[in-house]
Amino acid sequence: MSHVPQPQHPDFVARHIGPADDDVAAMLKVVGQSSLESLLDQAIPSVIRAGAALGLEAAESEPAVIRELRDKASRNTVLTSMIGLGYYGTHTPAVVRRNILENPAWYTAYTPYQPEISQGRLEALLNFQTVVSDLTGLATAGASLLDESTAVAEAMTLMRRGSKVAKDAVLVLDAQLMPQSIAVTRTRAVPLGIEVVVADLTTVSDAAALRALAGDRDVFGVVVQYPGADGSIRDWRGLADAAHEGGALVTAAADLLALTMLTPPAEWGADIAVGTTQRFGVPMGFGGPHAGYMSVRSGLERTMPGRLVGVSVDADGAPAYRLALQTREQHIRREKATSNICTAQVLLAVMASMYAVWHGPDGLTRIARATHAKAVALADSLHAAGVETTADHFFDTLTAVVPGRADAVVEAAVAHGVNIFRVDADHVSLSVDETTTAEDLHAVASAFGVNIPTLGDGEPNWPTVLRRTGEFLTHPVFHAHRSETSMLRYLRALSDRDYALDRGMIPLGSCTMKLNATTEMESITWPEFANLHPFAPADQTVGIRELISDLEGWLCKITGYDSVSLQPNAGSQGEFAGLLAIHAYHQANGEAHRNICLIPASAHGTNAASAVMAGLKVVVVKTAPTGEVDLEDLKQKLKEHGESLAAIMVTYPSTHGVFEDTITELCSLVHEAGGQVYVDGANLNALVGLAQPGEFGGDVSHLNLHKTFCIPHGGGGPGVGPVAVRAHLAPYLPNHPLSDEAGPATGVGPISAAPFGSASILPISWAYVRLMGGAGLTEATQTAILSANYVAARLREHFPVLYAGENGLVAHECILDLRGITKDTGVTVDDVAKRLIDYGFHAPTMSFPVAGTLMVEPTESEDLHELDRFCEAMIAIRGEIQAVADGAVPVADSVLRHAPHTAVSLTQDWDHPYTRAEAAYPAGVDPLRKYWAPVRRIDGAFGDRNLICSCPSPEAFED
Amino acid sequence: MSHVPQPQHPDFVARHIGPADDDVAAMLKVVGQSSLESLLDQAIPSVIRAGAALGLEAAESEPAVIRELRDKASRNTVLTSMIGLGYYGTHTPAVVRRNILENPAWYTAYTPYQPEISQGRLEALLNFQTVVSDLTGLATAGASLLDESTAVAEAMTLMRRGSKVAKDAVLVLDAQLMPQSIAVTRTRAVPLGIEVVVADLTTVSDAAALRALAGDRDVFGVVVQYPGADGSIRDWRGLADAAHEGGALVTAAADLLALTMLTPPAEWGADIAVGTTQRFGVPMGFGGPHAGYMSVRSGLERTMPGRLVGVSVDADGAPAYRLALQTREQHIRREKATSNICTAQVLLAVMASMYAVWHGPDGLTRIARATHAKAVALADSLHAAGVETTADHFFDTLTAVVPGRADAVVEAAVAHGVNIFRVDADHVSLSVDETTTAEDLHAVASAFGVNIPTLGDGEPNWPTVLRRTGEFLTHPVFHAHRSETSMLRYLRALSDRDYALDRGMIPLGSCTMKLNATTEMESITWPEFANLHPFAPADQTVGIRELISDLEGWLCKITGYDSVSLQPNAGSQGEFAGLLAIHAYHQANGEAHRNICLIPASAHGTNAASAVMAGLKVVVVKTAPTGEVDLEDLKQKLKEHGESLAAIMVTYPSTHGVFEDTITELCSLVHEAGGQVYVDGANLNALVGLAQPGEFGGDVSHLNLHKTFCIPHGGGGPGVGPVAVRAHLAPYLPNHPLSDEAGPATGVGPISAAPFGSASILPISWAYVRLMGGAGLTEATQTAILSANYVAARLREHFPVLYAGENGLVAHECILDLRGITKDTGVTVDDVAKRLIDYGFHAPTMSFPVAGTLMVEPTESEDLHELDRFCEAMIAIRGEIQAVADGAVPVADSVLRHAPHTAVSLTQDWDHPYTRAEAAYPAGVDPLRKYWAPVRRIDGAFGDRNLICSCPSPEAFED
Repeated sequence: MSHVPQPQHPDFVARHIGPADDDVAAMLKVVGQSSLESLLDQAIPSVIRAGAALGLEAAESEPAVIRELRDKASRNTVLTSMIGLGYYGTHTPAVVRRNILENPAWYTAYTPYQPEISQGRLEALLNFQTVVSDLTGLATAGASLLDESTAVAEAMTLMRRGSKVAKDAVLVLDAQLMPQSIAVTRTRAVPLGIEVVVADLTTVSDAAALRALAGDRDVFGVVVQYPGADGSIRDWRGLADAAHEGGALVTAAADLLALTMLTPPAEWGADIAVGTTQRFGVPMGFGGPHAGYMSVRSGLERTMPGRLVGVSVDADGAPAYRLALQTREQHIRREKATSNICTAQVLLAVMASMYAVWHGPDGLTRIARATHAKAVALADSLHAAGVETTADHFFDTLTAVVPGRADAVVEAAVAHGVNIFRVDADHVSLSVDETTTAEDLHAVASAFGVNIPTLGDGEPNWPTVLRRTGEFLTHPVFHAHRSETSMLRYLRALSDRDYALDRGMIPLGSCTMKLNATTEMESITWPEFANLHPFAPADQTVGIRELISDLEGWLCKITGYDSVSLQPNAGSQGEFAGLLAIHAYHQANGEAHRNICLIPASAHGTNAASAVMAGLKVVVVKTAPTGEVDLEDLKQKLKEHGESLAAIMVTYPSTHGVFEDTITELCSLVHEAGGQVYVDGANLNALVGLAQPGEFGGDVSHLNLHKTFCIPHGGGGPGVGPVAVRAHLAPYLPNHPLSDEAGPATGVGPISAAPFGSASILPISWAYVRLMGGAGLTEATQTAILSANYVAARLREHFPVLYAGENGLVAHECILDLRGITKDTGVTVDDVAKRLIDYGFHAPTMSFPVAGTLMVEPTESEDLHELDRFCEAMIAIRGEIQAVADGAVPVADSVLRHAPHTAVSLTQDWDHPYTRAEAAYPAGVDPLRKYWAPVRRIDGAFGDRNLICSCPSPEAFED
Repeated sequence: MSHVPQPQHPDFVARHIGPADDDVAAMLKVVGQSSLESLLDQAIPSVIRAGAALGLEAAESEPAVIRELRDKASRNTVLTSMIGLGYYGTHTPAVVRRNILENPAWYTAYTPYQPEISQGRLEALLNFQTVVSDLTGLATAGASLLDESTAVAEAMTLMRRGSKVAKDAVLVLDAQLMPQSIAVTRTRAVPLGIEVVVADLTTVSDAAALRALAGDRDVFGVVVQYPGADGSIRDWRGLADAAHEGGALVTAAADLLALTMLTPPAEWGADIAVGTTQRFGVPMGFGGPHAGYMSVRSGLERTMPGRLVGVSVDADGAPAYRLALQTREQHIRREKATSNICTAQVLLAVMASMYAVWHGPDGLTRIARATHAKAVALADSLHAAGVETTADHFFDTLTAVVPGRADAVVEAAVAHGVNIFRVDADHVSLSVDETTTAEDLHAVASAFGVNIPTLGDGEPNWPTVLRRTGEFLTHPVFHAHRSETSMLRYLRALSDRDYALDRGMIPLGSCTMKLNATTEMESITWPEFANLHPFAPADQTVGIRELISDLEGWLCKITGYDSVSLQPNAGSQGEFAGLLAIHAYHQANGEAHRNICLIPASAHGTNAASAVMAGLKVVVVKTAPTGEVDLEDLKQKLKEHGESLAAIMVTYPSTHGVFEDTITELCSLVHEAGGQVYVDGANLNALVGLAQPGEFGGDVSHLNLHKTFCIPHGGGGPGVGPVAVRAHLAPYLPNHPLSDEAGPATGVGPISAAPFGSASILPISWAYVRLMGGAGLTEATQTAILSANYVAARLREHFPVLYAGENGLVAHECILDLRGITKDTGVTVDDVAKRLIDYGFHAPTMSFPVAGTLMVEPTESEDLHELDRFCEAMIAIRGEIQAVADGAVPVADSVLRHAPHTAVSLTQDWDHPYTRAEAAYPAGVDPLRKYWAPVRRIDGAFGDRNLICSCPSPEAFED
């Protein structure tokens, strides 16, 4: 019988995996293997192979998984949130939600490291920077940080670097800083040996008073909340002057919506501003993801953490955007980096920027005033009824004095459908926002037993000196798109400039750009997941917490670890959390002195940066010529540092894309020396279902849900970086002061602002596991390994494949060595990467882990047609290189060096040794699917020399 | 105070309307008017101006409207549907829903009359035709018809035309034809004087028997359901032979999913196949929209109704798609047309085609077999428990014999969460489908009190002679996109070829391409609207029927009529319904002889075609040189035909884009002569809030919700064409045999398959009215009129504006007269239209209502920037024409004649009197927003001579 009916057949696995069964057979033949099993037997050391199949529930079909998700969603209860504390209701403009958050052209894009094919989102991010810079009044803003609390922590280290005070200087935090920010900053400060003082800074107005608060020590930095967590708006001029007088820097954690009406922090002396852009149209989502922001005054921009978009020029001299000052970053500076931040929150930053584009300065101000009017009305009503509030000047948040009645008031509010925040037994706070309706005000007033408020005009109730006077968002982009038609076209035009997975392959080594299936993405915009406050009561968040718990359990089964925390909202944060756990474990064992972290030379730069942040000293272990960790050198280092050894951080399979068969020996050696083994999970896509780091020697790993578990890269974030540990480290996972469920009481504190990190996107990975089941996940891994070996086999005769295992096989990625070619011809990896754009591809990873090479990771989701198209493009490019090698074409005027070619360039005078057709439509390019780079090759150095990080005037784009 | 807070400010109006307040002021200045009011006073005859503001509820904000819609949705109850009868559960592939149905690049496109910028959806429609043609086995399929029932009715007239039998020959319908198809066919047959016989045709096997059934008359056509409404699969070979022997043609109304397993109708002798493609991934949506289909055997293709996509070549000889054989169509043939069908169901046909692309022949067959297996299991269980079913051979539908218990069984099924169909007191029928789960089978079995069924392998339970043997969907496109990644890229690549409202203006006269706002679109994919069966019990459809009732009420208030039917699923169907009402009214008054329909020469071609379908005789009234209806000629015609006058059909404002001030006199004259006034609502966008056809003299109008009320054009459908009438015509509106709520008991019968037509998209128009309120709708109209006058004022000195009212003002559109230019230079409207593509615009309406002209309707949604961009492009083109006029450039080698220019053409040898840059980037074109036509100008005549209407082989696309 040819067609066996399978009414409930979970055919998603075949939709996720690119190559069909007969393609697999053809690919095996090219690789020279008789079967998938034989390939895996030879590629993967038997000693690490998992003994049993993954013990997950069987896969379900897409409709069935959607039903399960709807069931979970129905077990969340979405009340009106007035909890505030950095998370507010907001109306995502529908045109933005549909055309960005629900549009694969935006959400499947990679980080804009190839700027020529990322101009759309780079423009959006430049808009984001302009918003932040204009509203805070500070010269330079980045794009973006992970959340407000980690941004405060980043500000701490930036201030530490930027201030010229004594080594034992302390950090002073205002008592009204958001509680989660205080807690995250403490977690970060401990390993760095920074002392944190929390105090009421309202009345501090001279350097001596500040110094006194700091126990008569120097202060390197001060952080204030503006407005405060209690809602209060205070004039920080005196404090700022006092801090500066004593040599400290000042950071304002500021609310962007309030800033439309408040004096910008720069004007009262802040050096740095940080915060969240959540309420600019990004749903609360039970805590995230949202884009954190940071802006700094002139002089600090070159040491600011995170990504910075700048304006430069392309080969034709046209303005073009790209990431600026990348030499600051962790992947280059490694242990000398000042931050381990790697992922940004691009998709959310883009949304927030578009919220500002959509509303413009007038609209934002209108929203702010309407919000303020609601808060004023509520305050008036409370006062009229004799209920006191703590602050005379406030924007959107009130703290009400309800002696002994806080619990009762909170309960009454819930009964009226509103969540408010219990500060302590005698106080509650509540925040209104854009979405607060008259009915909501009525409801919360009823909870207090006061009269219905009436609305005023939103005139600020604070002193003139704290009212914004200057204009902001004066750039035309914030005025051009008031109609939905115009906005829609702007979004489309931007996305058309970018290359994402919806156009073709993005074969990035170590970044695992696989399918982000629609069914996986669907539920994240459902109101039952999107509209939950992270501190909402547990009985209102049953569904999402069940989902989180499911996912934790599955990740344990997949990795072989015993416990997982989903709090880290980026891989770098997972690394940091894992290293903190190791440190805490040693400390608990009375071995607090163990402070050496061994890191192989080939490691991700983030590893070293994270180790330093965790208070560890980095010692580098050599790489053997075969690409493996040099075991002899390891033994030597263990001999030298054994007593002080805290941990080793290794990536497996290695960053060279090889399954090293020495991994178990390495783990044993480290364990014997009293160290812990940190297995970086960046390459987990080569292991799922086949081997478990928690079983073959790892004590802790972080995973990248945005790599292996299908959370889309979002054009450069969000990421999710859960940390997974064996049982002995579980007591030291992150926890959270505002959520008992978020981690062990013995934990190391919070490392993200929200208890469960980027909770709103966890349904994506949940759905992926549910749709694939254990067998499907395993098949995906097998196919990913096959595909990498197929590419290696097809390209090996054209480009040397740098590393391979004993049997000549690679893992899930392969490194093409161009160093010989470059030496012989002058053609660089850059030339090949940019020429691939002309062929309709995103470049592989460039010069990592080995300079002068390209690392290709095809993943399991690319079908044979696309793999072949890529191989053929690379082979054709090899032919173009040969023309240079043969002396037929000078490299400086080669089709490679001039790549990418824009459509505009075809209309210009043509004086090249190749034709326009060869430039634009080389072999294999289907004219009907041609992707046009919007700019030619960008001069990065020019932009770094002439740093421009907010929207350039339209005149800059004239000829 | 600069910023007044408006917490609940419904700012949607400003988002929908393009020009901001200061733009309006600037535009008025250009138009030479001091205020909007003065413009309107001069443009619109005071006699028709509405006396009062629109009495609608105040506008609400987008979030509030979404809340209201969620509330309505929550009042629908979605049970598992086993009602069947042409509407089945189906899983829309998530990748298709998100990237087509929820993607403005697909849904905001216009009808592909400009094929060069419609290649993406034309390819999708060619896939659709291939699916239908392959599955039915008939040579040529169109794309697409409105629903299965109207397709049966269209088959009736096609068979009437195509058969060579006596004039009084009858139509014979199988008794198991879907009941709604029988009813719709009867409604259509009556005015044409066709007699319809319904009979059990199972045993008819010779011409004499068929003739006997027909009362001893000739039979021109036979229609059978395959499988029947009762589920039965019958062998129609004998009947087909008998029919052909007697000179009749045979139509099969066939289920496409069943056809994957059944002998194709062509193989047993059907000449025509019709049906619905709903179950190919298009939600039931309470009845529609879905794409109906028709395919015909060789020889009938040139008289087939509806749109037909064909393959031709472009100016470079490359294969290119376009609509074929357009000379058949109503807009050209007018009263000689054989059908009034105008709108197709493009968006839904695209979805259905992609369902087939996604699953391929194997997947479709698997789904069919799984469905059949479920039906077999259920039948076995019923039989085991002694419940009889009527048919031995069936695919997915069973009719169970439950003597006296039908109501009880239906009720029991509902109690178990399943809807089944009550055939009569003793029979129920039930249909399983792709979505039916084991739990659903269990539930329905419980309702019968029988055991749980077990599933077999789906081996067909019908005779070998009726089993499909040949292959189908062998074209590579049905095999290439099995992975979601590949499918996503295919959809993106297709949409990138097309120009839709998400790229720029589509200034089509009479087609009102305004904003289709995201908030309006959002609810249509909610399960509570999408998953309702059209015949679901009234108590399960409270929310959607409330919404329908709201909308009917609002449309009455807007138009000044007393009653509205939303059943017509296209404007043409609304016209037909309106004319039927007029005829029924005359009949009821004893004036059945009134059969003359006056139609001005400038009318839409559909008017005349509809009149003929309604059994009326068309008499043309002349147009005066000023563009108005020639009142003298009207008086003459009334004198000639007064006694026989049924109606006049006029468009207001006229198709010339002018508010004729003689409209009230015209209405009086017709009424005095005993006729009814039909006001075509195509131009209602110029009237809403300002004038009411039901007040200024109309008796009946159809509206186009896809023009004035924001339902997107979907690339050429769906449309919704409600008919609105004054009270005296209300008893004659459409009704429906399966829904008492759908219309008056005295109605003319159904004109669409579903009781409320395309119910699932009515939330779009509902939301539009709710978001705009009366004031917003009125402001939209005012702005639309201003914008048209602005364009006319700016372009008048470059192109003559053909018609204008007394004060030199136009209504909401203007006609640019190119006839002089063409005469002087040879540059045609085609040249200008195609050159506009190079400038990044969709062409205006070409050569309607006057040959050699372009009609521009900017609508209120285009902002001043876009209006100016368009005007400047037209002015620049006028300059290019001047170069021809001046003799500097021969027209045959002008940039106009060679337009559009593809990117590929820039790489070719260049021997033109203009540069590549002038070709591709003329003045005003932003290189970063350049739209590239994927093909050059298409040779339509070549394609009509060499008709290819299914997917061409990939080799055709090689150089």
